[in-house]
Amino acid sequence: MDLIIRGGTIVTATDTYAADIGIVDGKVAQIGGDFAAGDAHVIDAEGKLVLPGAIDVHTHLDAPSQGAHTVDDFLSGTIAAACGGTTTVIDFCTQVRGQTLLEALELWHGKARDKAVVDYGFHMIVVDFSATTYDELAQLPGLGVTSFKLFMAYKGQSMVNDDVLIAVLDQARRHGALVLVHAENGEATEFLRQRLVQEGKTEPKFHASSRPPRVEAEATARAIALAEIVGAPIYIVHVSCGEALEEVTRGRARGVDVLAETCSQYLYLTEDVLDQPAFEGAKYVFTPPPRQAHQPPLLWDALAAHELQVVSSDHSPFNFVGGKDRGRDDFTQIPNGGPGIEERPVLVFQGVHDGRLSLNRFVDLVATAPAKIFGLYPSKGTIAIGSDADLAIWDPDIEWTLGASQLHHRVDYTMYEGTQVRGAPQTVLRRGEVIVRDREFVGQPGTGQFLPRKPYRADAVL
Amino acid sequence: MDLIIRGGTIVTATDTYAADIGIVDGKVAQIGGDFAAGDAHVIDAEGKLVLPGAIDVHTHLDAPSQGAHTVDDFLSGTIAAACGGTTTVIDFCTQVRGQTLLEALELWHGKARDKAVVDYGFHMIVVDFSATTYDELAQLPGLGVTSFKLFMAYKGQSMVNDDVLIAVLDQARRHGALVLVHAENGEATEFLRQRLVQEGKTEPKFHASSRPPRVEAEATARAIALAEIVGAPIYIVHVSCGEALEEVTRGRARGVDVLAETCSQYLYLTEDVLDQPAFEGAKYVFTPPPRQAHQPPLLWDALAAHELQVVSSDHSPFNFVGGKDRGRDDFTQIPNGGPGIEERPVLVFQGVHDGRLSLNRFVDLVATAPAKIFGLYPSKGTIAIGSDADLAIWDPDIEWTLGASQLHHRVDYTMYEGTQVRGAPQTVLRRGEVIVRDREFVGQPGTGQFLPRKPYRADAVL
Amino acid sequence: MDLIIRGGTIVTATDTYAADIGIVDGKVAQIGGDFAAGDAHVIDAEGKLVLPGAIDVHTHLDAPSQGAHTVDDFLSGTIAAACGGTTTVIDFCTQVRGQTLLEALELWHGKARDKAVVDYGFHMIVVDFSATTYDELAQLPGLGVTSFKLFMAYKGQSMVNDDVLIAVLDQARRHGALVLVHAENGEATEFLRQRLVQEGKTEPKFHASSRPPRVEAEATARAIALAEIVGAPIYIVHVSCGEALEEVTRGRARGVDVLAETCSQYLYLTEDVLDQPAFEGAKYVFTPPPRQAHQPPLLWDALAAHELQVVSSDHSPFNFVGGKDRGRDDFTQIPNGGPGIEERPVLVFQGVHDGRLSLNRFVDLVATAPAKIFGLYPSKGTIAIGSDADLAIWDPDIEWTLGASQLHHRVDYTMYEGTQVRGAPQTVLRRGEVIVRDREFVGQPGTGQFLPRKPYRADAVL
Amino acid sequence: MDLIIRGGTIVTATDTYAADIGIVDGKVAQIGGDFAAGDAHVIDAEGKLVLPGAIDVHTHLDAPSQGAHTVDDFLSGTIAAACGGTTTVIDFCTQVRGQTLLEALELWHGKARDKAVVDYGFHMIVVDFSATTYDELAQLPGLGVTSFKLFMAYKGQSMVNDDVLIAVLDQARRHGALVLVHAENGEATEFLRQRLVQEGKTEPKFHASSRPPRVEAEATARAIALAEIVGAPIYIVHVSCGEALEEVTRGRARGVDVLAETCSQYLYLTEDVLDQPAFEGAKYVFTPPPRQAHQPPLLWDALAAHELQVVSSDHSPFNFVGGKDRGRDDFTQIPNGGPGIEERPVLVFQGVHDGRLSLNRFVDLVATAPAKIFGLYPSKGTIAIGSDADLAIWDPDIEWTLGASQLHHRVDYTMYEGTQVRGAPQTVLRRGEVIVRDREFVGQPGTGQFLPRKPYRADAVL
Repeated sequence: MDLIIRGGTIVTATDTYAADIGIVDGKVAQIGGDFAAGDAHVIDAEGKLVLPGAIDVHTHLDAPSQGAHTVDDFLSGTIAAACGGTTTVIDFCTQVRGQTLLEALELWHGKARDKAVVDYGFHMIVVDFSATTYDELAQLPGLGVTSFKLFMAYKGQSMVNDDVLIAVLDQARRHGALVLVHAENGEATEFLRQRLVQEGKTEPKFHASSRPPRVEAEATARAIALAEIVGAPIYIVHVSCGEALEEVTRGRARGVDVLAETCSQYLYLTEDVLDQPAFEGAKYVFTPPPRQAHQPPLLWDALAAHELQVVSSDHSPFNFVGGKDRGRDDFTQIPNGGPGIEERPVLVFQGVHDGRLSLNRFVDLVATAPAKIFGLYPSKGTIAIGSDADLAIWDPDIEWTLGASQLHHRVDYTMYEGTQVRGAPQTVLRRGEVIVRDREFVGQPGTGQFLPRKPYRADAVL
Repeated sequence: MDLIIRGGTIVTATDTYAADIGIVDGKVAQIGGDFAAGDAHVIDAEGKLVLPGAIDVHTHLDAPSQGAHTVDDFLSGTIAAACGGTTTVIDFCTQVRGQTLLEALELWHGKARDKAVVDYGFHMIVVDFSATTYDELAQLPGLGVTSFKLFMAYKGQSMVNDDVLIAVLDQARRHGALVLVHAENGEATEFLRQRLVQEGKTEPKFHASSRPPRVEAEATARAIALAEIVGAPIYIVHVSCGEALEEVTRGRARGVDVLAETCSQYLYLTEDVLDQPAFEGAKYVFTPPPRQAHQPPLLWDALAAHELQVVSSDHSPFNFVGGKDRGRDDFTQIPNGGPGIEERPVLVFQGVHDGRLSLNRFVDLVATAPAKIFGLYPSKGTIAIGSDADLAIWDPDIEWTLGASQLHHRVDYTMYEGTQVRGAPQTVLRRGEVIVRDREFVGQPGTGQFLPRKPYRADAVL
Repeated sequence: MDLIIRGGTIVTATDTYAADIGIVDGKVAQIGGDFAAGDAHVIDAEGKLVLPGAIDVHTHLDAPSQGAHTVDDFLSGTIAAACGGTTTVIDFCTQVRGQTLLEALELWHGKARDKAVVDYGFHMIVVDFSATTYDELAQLPGLGVTSFKLFMAYKGQSMVNDDVLIAVLDQARRHGALVLVHAENGEATEFLRQRLVQEGKTEPKFHASSRPPRVEAEATARAIALAEIVGAPIYIVHVSCGEALEEVTRGRARGVDVLAETCSQYLYLTEDVLDQPAFEGAKYVFTPPPRQAHQPPLLWDALAAHELQVVSSDHSPFNFVGGKDRGRDDFTQIPNGGPGIEERPVLVFQGVHDGRLSLNRFVDLVATAPAKIFGLYPSKGTIAIGSDADLAIWDPDIEWTLGASQLHHRVDYTMYEGTQVRGAPQTVLRRGEVIVRDREFVGQPGTGQFLPRKPYRADAVL
Repeated sequence: MDLIIRGGTIVTATDTYAADIGIVDGKVAQIGGDFAAGDAHVIDAEGKLVLPGAIDVHTHLDAPSQGAHTVDDFLSGTIAAACGGTTTVIDFCTQVRGQTLLEALELWHGKARDKAVVDYGFHMIVVDFSATTYDELAQLPGLGVTSFKLFMAYKGQSMVNDDVLIAVLDQARRHGALVLVHAENGEATEFLRQRLVQEGKTEPKFHASSRPPRVEAEATARAIALAEIVGAPIYIVHVSCGEALEEVTRGRARGVDVLAETCSQYLYLTEDVLDQPAFEGAKYVFTPPPRQAHQPPLLWDALAAHELQVVSSDHSPFNFVGGKDRGRDDFTQIPNGGPGIEERPVLVFQGVHDGRLSLNRFVDLVATAPAKIFGLYPSKGTIAIGSDADLAIWDPDIEWTLGASQLHHRVDYTMYEGTQVRGAPQTVLRRGEVIVRDREFVGQPGTGQFLPRKPYRADAVL
């Protein structure tokens, strides 16, 4: 045995029990008690929770976006991830106009290869649907990329029309891939933005007015209807409000295989944050926008009720200085997105302390369900014999305050500055190797591995 | 007094009572009994119902459509209308590509002027949204055209995208016009059509498979959402199924000013008619298609419950021989549409006999509500002092069989051949003039008048 | 011709038009213009609206209730009604324990006979379902009483259990009667009341806490389900909240013949009125209680959308001094109910000024629909040839302030003291006789007539 | 180590992985591979699934019911359970009129003590709510009985009214107990039964007519509403139809802590089985009755979607001969209930083969969720270090035919005679002891233990 985690309480999406874990060759080999330690290194987890490493299925590292570029690369981003207890990310490989999908994929491999410190996979964002795209989509699952992402928003940039959405859903269906959609009606948003700007309403707070819940709900309903017509599964990213959630549950009730995530920011932030003085509201200009105060409890309830399957971060970091301030005179020029790759696990964990989720459901939402949906299970997402020893050893009761200075991302702020939380990952292992000790990164750049993912199978997820 | 209708039972959308009607200058001047007849002409209506002339707000006369042309012009079409008890039509003025709206309007006036035998108004169909269209829309209400129609279906032909739908809704809102939409997702339909054809499924019955209820429901939901975002009222034409109806009621429940019609064919015909031998199914290739057998009762119930406001005909006549047969080898080539301008009133009247509607609700659906919604009330749509004496004197109990040979349209079939019905308009007056006597047209071509319509006002409709 | 109403604008549930009305033998005989006045008395209605006399289908005059007694008898109550523009009431004949239904009916005839100044009918409240009750119910329609009322609330007083509700629904079904239910779960209310009192929560404001919306929605759902199982129509009285309304629309959607009313107080008063100082809140202790501020708009919308059919008053007048104050130390001892017989029409009329209803829908809600549902149409509820000349001539624009001193009921307060309204009936005719002139009663006690009502027929109502 | 299960595939509600299990003192002590066997007994599980022993939370053993008595006692019933793979039952201790709850509990302990071969707990059925009952309920959790059951059906027998339901919910809330309800409106059922009998409709098939879905949905809605008003959690037993399911999800959506089960018979049997010749239909007279064919798929979908939490058996065995035949001339005299304690696990397992559930969800529904909801977790319901070694070793692919002759219950039929299934538990261990080997019982009577259960906690279940 190479390593023993001793004395902790293991938590999976189902179970909570005290036991030691024995690790061999980076995998969980034994669970129980009274192991003969032999030469094995021993980590004391007395009084701690031993959780599966979290999986963040929605990150934008080193990525072009709306004319800007995210400031975390695969090094800083995955270090932040690791320090937050996340040992796998699935990043969005982003096609730009004129590029083939395979070129984009090659580029993304290059971005990650020597930098990533946690394991990683890629979704493919399809922006430019050219003559060859349809065939390229067929090749991607063989290259380990079994999920495609489309934007229904961002007119003139990454938005696609229904014809492309249908074509990609149909091709995904044929090749066992899962289509992810950013569901906001891009035409409606464009109309509202222009009207607001014409009316001189250019402060950050009007970002919310330009993308009301109905804009999201409409596109959500449409995406699900198209998936139903094509006969394909569909995954709705960043559900932010009850209106969109209702469309998810309606679709599922009529038999469509709809999966959906929310993000940590929608569980905590409400639209008033956009109205902070000194342009500070710009920090919270992400899309869909933060919603009214009655919305977050609806999302928490939906997580508990299995109506939503995943919490991701949508980590899209742009600096406040030199990034967000591009839109000082016009909110439509603010790059949309905010950081969250490190904060996500503890923010959801706080829901356990607050009585909103069981500890097991927490694990399910941040680790197990993502692994199953995106073809990484059983290597990732759980603690079981044979699984990768991706483990986060949490002190469940330590109280601390979120702040940019303690976090490890490269962006110059956190959206949760001053927020009190309870619980933190102290030690994090990736395939049996300690990469975070005492809450600081101790690993090596480039040691993360690319994860080719299995095709989507509904029966693995149910 | 010019004319007295004596001894009949007057029916309005609210009331049913025995009284005589005195007419002066083509308008209802007196209601009651014991008029001194004087020189007045007297029509005996003993044992008969005296109803407001019906209004058909959805006709396509002398119109290009999908590369074909409807075979009823304003003469044959309005004669058929009159014989069915309809004294007003609102026809769809149809822009073709490269044409301005005002050119199309001028053209339509020309088509109707010397031919129409009932009064008429126009909706404007916007197909080609060019640089000048937005301003032209602003002029139309001043020209008496207070409703605009858009197609979300028919890709590559009349389909518009959401940007045009939003722009037209916004301009309509500014100028008191009402937007009508044909709500089917044109991209989804195109996908399904192509797939069916590729699979060799080319018979008429696959027309229904190519436009399932979800295709209609999706577009209905989207149109309503866009109206909500813009802050405009919206009118959904030819609702054919419970799925679309659900979207109408959901939209209304959240405060959107949604109005909706169904057509007589959706109350009677079900998808099995498409599967008749000898290509006869082609006669029923209209859009949306006839639905499964559980759907018509949902529509009847919605009419009774005020969830739907209007029954129209969507009269789009193409001959079977030399028209429909264009698609003998490929259902996608069949011109979509069927006749109904004469059959509509009696088909809805039959619902009274069948216990589905009260007599008053019948009047509301075919006459009063159309008049109020489309700015024709109180001249049209009711029997009240000062209203136009557009009257249909019905024998409520005469039993007869629908058949192409008795009907007055120019198209070579009826979709209701052999259907037993009860009740018929015997005498029809338009502005006090008898234009149908003993069920035959006795009027003069070109005596119908153009009706400039008032702007849409929600509070006139509630 | 006996009487001519000249120059007014006639309004029915459908139409609005300028015309004179000629009255003969208390009935509308002629509508139009230029009548030869002859000997006829002429009333000038220039600039006024001529409306059908309103019908109040929910009054408790001279009635025992919860150990108290309502303070308006058939004289004061119907004078107040008339002054408000109401020319027909349907009062609740209330069986008390130990009494047969026929005894109760006889008693009620005696209460009304020499006093009523407007025409009246009776519903029968069944409290004590004894061995003979079932057979008595069968006799009531023959005596002109075609509606039966049951209470699901008021445990130990008028509450009946489901067995009685089922039996009465079944007997009503057999004899063409309509069952009305007061839908609140009496056991749940009793539990909440006792718990509140035990906790020392005895002020009037806790009345609302003791009867939350779910208590009403549950009973509404149950009553509708039982009607569905029995196969009978049902009428839900005083719907006060969206939760109960949802049950009404759900029931209707699955084909149950559900009718429902709200009352004027639910359109205007919200639960904060219960928390007024000096025990003033007791004036608003009626049942169901006033609701939160988001509820009235839901009810207004439901009226416009035809989801609710009727607005009644539930006039249950108890004096504040010597009545309501019985419960000064314990809200459960306050007699439940408030006055509204005179205020109701103008409060709903205000909805027309506020853009919530059309004038026609107003007439429908307070006059026409009540007449049709309760078997009084066409004698009552409309203005048409042959109908009773029950007319209210309204000045639509006069502005005034509601206050107990101007009103005509006997109770010592109004729930709308200080409320600004617009419009008032100036002259009121009952069967062609002026009983209100210049807003004051000028008629004679006992001139109102008992109205035997026709059996309920769904097809007369649709 | 006492015992090793070698080479199997372990399945929990989350995980599926190959590993050996080491058992010490009847508990799972080690999971992994390459254990030194030492003296330990070894069971070869190569090619097999190792599942947690199933838990059946709904059995009626040795119980009086509707004037009859179930024919399985705690010996035959728990042997059948064990042979089906079930290692824990929670039986309904049934108060009879005149008995205190503690007397009933004492009696039930006596029934089980020397007979049960699997571990067991008790729910308490409250039938006779006397003056002392409220206080007795408070004592039960201390005695390990943390769930109370009430019947809303069976008028004149076990039915309670809303007052008792409220009182029990309130007391349960105070003491951490969970209330279970049989939700059918007993008055409506009684009405329908009497009407059917009066009409001479006495064959078994009319059992379904006497208890339509609305009867169940109404009571389900009411029970949930009362739980909401009291502020207590509630568990709905044997949900049989979409109508009731809708009420469960509506209640949950508004924040009520509603849990619900269905039973295996509702997943397989439809109402046509009641119409078999030779009175055979009587075998399927259970309550609620089998439903129409569209219902079972709704229930399967609800299991997959986490809308239903548990599948139980409602094992209520009455012999066909000498039991069911009591009602040969009148279906209302047929004892309601059927056997299923042994069939349940394999019937749900079949859903895995049929693609309706994942293997993990299967385990959740029959073992893990029941344990968590009813206070038995983590001793029961999972395979984890420290849990009882209650294990069922299944051959997942063996095909066989259900038939009374192979099953181990004492009742003279199975409702699934001739049904083909796939998979079976070959070996079953209870606390590490083999009690079933090669599909036959090899244990000793009376070795099952009473399980005092923990109070209900929502946060352990989420």
